[in-house]
Amino acid sequence: MTDVHFEKIALIGIGLIGSSIARDVKDQGLAGEIVISTRSADTLKRAEELELGDGYTLSAAEAVEGADLVIISVPVGASESVARQIASHLKPGAIVTDVGSTKASVIAQIAPHMPPGIHFVPGHPIAGTEKSGPDAGFCGLFKGRWCILTPLPGTDAGALTRLRAFWEALGSRVDEMDPQHHDKVLAIVSHLPHIIAYNIVGTADDLETVTESEVIKYSASGFRDFTRLAASDPTMWRDVCLHNRDAILEMLARFSEDLAYLQRAIRWGEGDKLFELFTRTRAIRRSIVEAGQDVDAPDFGRHALDEKKG
Amino acid sequence: MTDVHFEKIALIGIGLIGSSIARDVKDQGLAGEIVISTRSADTLKRAEELELGDGYTLSAAEAVEGADLVIISVPVGASESVARQIASHLKPGAIVTDVGSTKASVIAQIAPHMPPGIHFVPGHPIAGTEKSGPDAGFCGLFKGRWCILTPLPGTDAGALTRLRAFWEALGSRVDEMDPQHHDKVLAIVSHLPHIIAYNIVGTADDLETVTESEVIKYSASGFRDFTRLAASDPTMWRDVCLHNRDAILEMLARFSEDLAYLQRAIRWGEGDKLFELFTRTRAIRRSIVEAGQDVDAPDFGRHALDEKKG
Repeated sequence: MTDVHFEKIALIGIGLIGSSIARDVKDQGLAGEIVISTRSADTLKRAEELELGDGYTLSAAEAVEGADLVIISVPVGASESVARQIASHLKPGAIVTDVGSTKASVIAQIAPHMPPGIHFVPGHPIAGTEKSGPDAGFCGLFKGRWCILTPLPGTDAGALTRLRAFWEALGSRVDEMDPQHHDKVLAIVSHLPHIIAYNIVGTADDLETVTESEVIKYSASGFRDFTRLAASDPTMWRDVCLHNRDAILEMLARFSEDLAYLQRAIRWGEGDKLFELFTRTRAIRRSIVEAGQDVDAPDFGRHALDEKKG
Repeated sequence: MTDVHFEKIALIGIGLIGSSIARDVKDQGLAGEIVISTRSADTLKRAEELELGDGYTLSAAEAVEGADLVIISVPVGASESVARQIASHLKPGAIVTDVGSTKASVIAQIAPHMPPGIHFVPGHPIAGTEKSGPDAGFCGLFKGRWCILTPLPGTDAGALTRLRAFWEALGSRVDEMDPQHHDKVLAIVSHLPHIIAYNIVGTADDLETVTESEVIKYSASGFRDFTRLAASDPTMWRDVCLHNRDAILEMLARFSEDLAYLQRAIRWGEGDKLFELFTRTRAIRRSIVEAGQDVDAPDFGRHALDEKKG
């Protein structure tokens, strides 16, 4: 059995992801000590009120002293700054990982600063909600979700195995992938959907012919689905757009090309083309539900929640 | 009090909407008799197995004989065919309504066929799920949702009041609107979201660099949200696209213009423009939740369902 217990875990950043990790680690006793660090004094105070860790500090350098696992959970644009701050304070042999939604950029920001003898293993748990901050985290966020590790050439096998076992202890299934491929996959399954959702909500907000009150009242007819993703953390998503630019632009080009085809079919009344696409997409939904990656209940089960409400 | 009880209600079409109406009408005893008609013998048989009505017939003409309320719930492209079939069989003074997602086209298809003395009041309940067919309906689908009526000039006030009271009895809130305005509002809150969802799922399905299995495995990072709308009934949505063409093309043009702006901001690294949009869209989500048009639970409450599962 791989040892998934760490003497000291340092969490740099304590938002939705960091605080969910903290809760799971505590719940399962995976660490002798959890030390939390974040740039904002208010957030740090809140983490302490929520009793997410054992120690709290505004200094990332101080937090990582003596830690055998360091998890960086900050907006990807802040990765280099964190790496600079912690580099010379890391304990020899420590595992350093992150949870960023882009991998090539995060590696470029962190790897050059890691001293010899430190095991930097980039990671990305494919989990989250539209909420953010330390209050948004919860036990079990990673259960049944995939976590992608993108180890660099020459990564220590033992460190990789321990990190893998750590995520598995949190209920994740773990995949390994090339960072560039990760960034392409995430561009289509996550970044493009968020950008499209932000965009359509922006379009609706800007219309002169339809009022905002009408958009809100009638949103149950489809629009409201997009507003969930479009309520995600603005800083995180600004950084994702800036740090996975090429893959996102590639996917946006494909999306726009396909949309032009669809638009033309609508303009010229080509019902068969529309019907073909609308049938094909149904199968993908079924596969996602069968793979256990979404609930089968109609309307994401919202109706059940409405019922409970009264 | 307005009388919301009808001697005989004829339901033409018994899919998600028609069968939900049937269940509510039965549950609340709003009709002396419900007669159901649909083009498909299999669907009709299923409706009978589910005991959704009191009479069942493949003939729409037969179904409407003696009915004082006729509700047409078919794909909007089939409206004229239904109108032709029922026109000469309608009971004098009957109220005829529909539930179609486009209104100008449905009015153009139905109104010319309605004999004098028949009260045709077009309607559209803003409710549904991605499921279709008679099994997909349920009691309470319309509860708390808006229903838009688009009465024509000269509509009988009494008929309008009765139909309004009928929808209110099903738990709906009722709005009146000009048909052209309805079609613009729905183009942005419903038709564009569905088209965009279908499109992005199609784009992902077509990629060569990312496999379908990867799209499915990692879909919890955003993509899966779109697959729900993209699993909606293909016939219904083909017809919507063909029958609200101008308003949809207008909204698509606005969407694409906004997306080009966003794409350019990503290309040139203009983080402030991204941050501004991503912040603004958050407020709309909040308003929708406050208006009771979506659940407040993170991730549409999916996690709660996962928990229950195991």
